[in-house]
Amino acid sequence: MRVMIIGAAGMLGRKLAASLADDGSLGGRKIDSLILADVVKPNTVKFSGEVELLETDLSEPGKAEALVARRPDLIFHLAAIVSGEAEANFEKGYHVNLDGTRSLFEAIRKTAEMDSYTPKVVFTSSIVVYGEPLPECIDDDYVVAPLTSYGAQKAIGEILLADYSRRGFFDGIGIRLPTISIRPGKPNRAASGFFSSILREPLIGEPAILPVSDDVRHWFASPRAAVGFMLHAATLDTRALEARRTLTMPGVCATVGDQVDALRRAAGENATKLIRREYDPVIANIIAGWPRRFRAARAEQLGFKAEANFDEIIRVHLEDELAHVTSH
Amino acid sequence: MRVMIIGAAGMLGRKLAASLADDGSLGGRKIDSLILADVVKPNTVKFSGEVELLETDLSEPGKAEALVARRPDLIFHLAAIVSGEAEANFEKGYHVNLDGTRSLFEAIRKTAEMDSYTPKVVFTSSIVVYGEPLPECIDDDYVVAPLTSYGAQKAIGEILLADYSRRGFFDGIGIRLPTISIRPGKPNRAASGFFSSILREPLIGEPAILPVSDDVRHWFASPRAAVGFMLHAATLDTRALEARRTLTMPGVCATVGDQVDALRRAAGENATKLIRREYDPVIANIIAGWPRRFRAARAEQLGFKAEANFDEIIRVHLEDELAHVTSH
Repeated sequence: MRVMIIGAAGMLGRKLAASLADDGSLGGRKIDSLILADVVKPNTVKFSGEVELLETDLSEPGKAEALVARRPDLIFHLAAIVSGEAEANFEKGYHVNLDGTRSLFEAIRKTAEMDSYTPKVVFTSSIVVYGEPLPECIDDDYVVAPLTSYGAQKAIGEILLADYSRRGFFDGIGIRLPTISIRPGKPNRAASGFFSSILREPLIGEPAILPVSDDVRHWFASPRAAVGFMLHAATLDTRALEARRTLTMPGVCATVGDQVDALRRAAGENATKLIRREYDPVIANIIAGWPRRFRAARAEQLGFKAEANFDEIIRVHLEDELAHVTSH
Repeated sequence: MRVMIIGAAGMLGRKLAASLADDGSLGGRKIDSLILADVVKPNTVKFSGEVELLETDLSEPGKAEALVARRPDLIFHLAAIVSGEAEANFEKGYHVNLDGTRSLFEAIRKTAEMDSYTPKVVFTSSIVVYGEPLPECIDDDYVVAPLTSYGAQKAIGEILLADYSRRGFFDGIGIRLPTISIRPGKPNRAASGFFSSILREPLIGEPAILPVSDDVRHWFASPRAAVGFMLHAATLDTRALEARRTLTMPGVCATVGDQVDALRRAAGENATKLIRREYDPVIANIIAGWPRRFRAARAEQLGFKAEANFDEIIRVHLEDELAHVTSH
């Protein structure tokens, strides 16, 4: 089996590639080659089969065709510019996140119309396709109504995925990822960044800023869970999805207070003292419009699994990111 | 005020143009010019102001810019190829219904970024953005999940409309039209055609074929009501919509049996005998996946009004289409 990851240089793309390379197979099928593509050249992975590393921009003419010409049996499409950039640069957001996705789908369709090529396509969407007004708990049949251009572009990708799949051009499945916490790496200025940094920094003895109140509630999954969602989606029989090809992923519903409590249990009271509360009305206002809780019934019925709580998310982080520096 | 109708040669476009020309004003503002555009040259209308008739294809390069260069204060965007054609010709459907709409929105955005141009845009969507599984009655916050390419293209148009409006490029409002009955004109081969022909033909003494059972339930409005929705949308203060810019329109929820009963009351038992029941499993199967009833609460609160029942829809048809041939 030939497996392609588009967006392979990003945090989740790298972890997904490493996991596939490590396993060497997926759903009982041997992986012969890994094709890793991104706008910057992805790092290679330790893999017994063939690895191809491609620096390419999906949204540029001819690039999607060149990728699809490699006839991957399975395509993970993770490539996107992030929410803040899509909001700051309207044209770039639509060019990369909408035109890029459509170019990929069109390249597959045109190949599919020539021969019997019908790859599986796993598309990562996001819970930010939802926007206020929202119920306290969001069901699978609640209306998608994004409040950012990024959310709009993902929502359009979901509709295209469903229509191209319905027409038989490929076999698509979309997964709406929760906010990823704990993101490894350095603090960034994304509005959601503190959801990771208030745990990540104190766990290594560094300070972190909390810009919202402790009762703010949101929906989370670890990077490991997100990779697990993608792998599960790739092996799922999509007939169970019928026409609705995108699923909200399960996650941990937690308040900032729950996060802090889990940090206390994992690393002690002193770790929590590294969190400095500096209320930021701009960030608080952005976060206030975000979804807080989902009833991800369809995904759970289909076997998608997230962590149970933030104790588990912290343990996963220690295992995956800090095993080399801690004695846990 | 300069008013543009894109899709002005279609059945609803013609009625809308005639209504605007007849009134001469909209929401208390005088209409100075009517710009009527379509892929075929629209017929002119009797109007005291200026009328421009344009044969143009919105989806062709430069055409949207040429339309927007006329700086209409209000744009009705009705142009689309219909459901059956969009399903039969995938590329053409996306080209006209998605690229055409996006070209228009982009042309407005680029003009808006140069000066303070911010037109009102009324976009006609359709209840076919909804697809099975559906509840018996569909609320405003039920998930949009189209089962046709036409529905997908309209759903994407709705998302773009909301995002471009949120960004302030124009002031958009989308209206999801019910199935229009009674459509004037000749029978056509659209799956929904019988919903009009079983009334329209018997009312003039002609036979009609009913391909589904009498208990089939659906959601309707007259052409006059549809024009009323568009005019009301054009004058509505969109601040009331907040982020959700597209509204499901109110309608008449009726079974085929209800239609036949109304025909009997309007034209007698003999008229109903002109309906020949010829069950068509293909059409019955298509119709089975269609929405049956809506709770169009938002639109009703905002003052959109449809007919109360099919007696009224038939009366409207007699007044608007047959006044010259009947003695009613």
